[in-house]
Amino acid sequence: MGVDPGAANLGFGVVRVEGDHMVALDGGVVETPADMAVEQRLSRIHEALAELITWHEPKALAIEDLYFGKNVRSAMIVGQASGVALLAAAQRGVSCFTYTPQAIKMAVCGAGGADKKQVQRMVGMLLGLPEPPSPDHAADALAVAICHGARIAPASALGPSPVPRPGVATEERLAG
Amino acid sequence: MGVDPGAANLGFGVVRVEGDHMVALDGGVVETPADMAVEQRLSRIHEALAELITWHEPKALAIEDLYFGKNVRSAMIVGQASGVALLAAAQRGVSCFTYTPQAIKMAVCGAGGADKKQVQRMVGMLLGLPEPPSPDHAADALAVAICHGARIAPASALGPSPVPRPGVATEERLAG
Repeated sequence: MGVDPGAANLGFGVVRVEGDHMVALDGGVVETPADMAVEQRLSRIHEALAELITWHEPKALAIEDLYFGKNVRSAMIVGQASGVALLAAAQRGVSCFTYTPQAIKMAVCGAGGADKKQVQRMVGMLLGLPEPPSPDHAADALAVAICHGARIAPASALGPSPVPRPGVATEERLAG
Repeated sequence: MGVDPGAANLGFGVVRVEGDHMVALDGGVVETPADMAVEQRLSRIHEALAELITWHEPKALAIEDLYFGKNVRSAMIVGQASGVALLAAAQRGVSCFTYTPQAIKMAVCGAGGADKKQVQRMVGMLLGLPEPPSPDHAADALAVAICHGARIAPASALGPSPVPRPGVATEERLAG
């Protein structure tokens, strides 16, 4: 399960690794109105993710490593949303993994500098979807999930019970 | 109840407004080891704050508004910790308020640029403690709590059931 912790829209995407490819099980966004109190928005996000995790029972939760840009106000709520997402996973015994934007783009597009549209197209292609997934946040969440899936896929071919290892994916593992 | 969302040590402080002054009810830090998985640290912080909120039943939770500095890595966990703190409050129906560091220093020391030691000394004095509270994070959390208490104090003198209003305290209100 991948999560893209946006401010007004938090994206989620669930993929399953099936042999040498992946399929999409779910994807969408959790919307919270900007005029709602921050703690209420976080509560709604936590509740929605808790339900999704309980429903899908993912092996792992993957989330984009946050880099704070110029917009401090949105960075704060993004960090807070990421916190409650990780909490929802931890409360259900689901291990969490973070990936840099570069590692995610490298896993999905083969290039760390790929643009948003390219990521969206490749996510659709890799998951065998009839068209690129939308909205953006759901596509980004599926991309994080693919990134983690690609990282554990080689291990899953080696034994029946692969143990994902934490850390940031390297270009070498993702290319392998 | 005030919260200072530090990375390894999250400070908390509980004060009660009694007429024209405030008293400290509780204060301390929630420590989480740096080598623990982030989601486990967040889970421990959430659990500890949930217990404290259930125990003290605070009227409000006040937290410092986050400004991300140079250390992006620690900014991320601080944002995430702040997220689970707000969630713990929201889940128990406790309203949350944020204050800028300047507003907090202004409320406690009468100067927005006061240094850490000065804040610590004034927190001890305002709460009638025999010595300045420590560690730093607990003192900072008590300072946020005092800041919020100072803001609602004038209103509480006007009626039996004051309704705290969200937003950032102004110097005028704090000085009043």
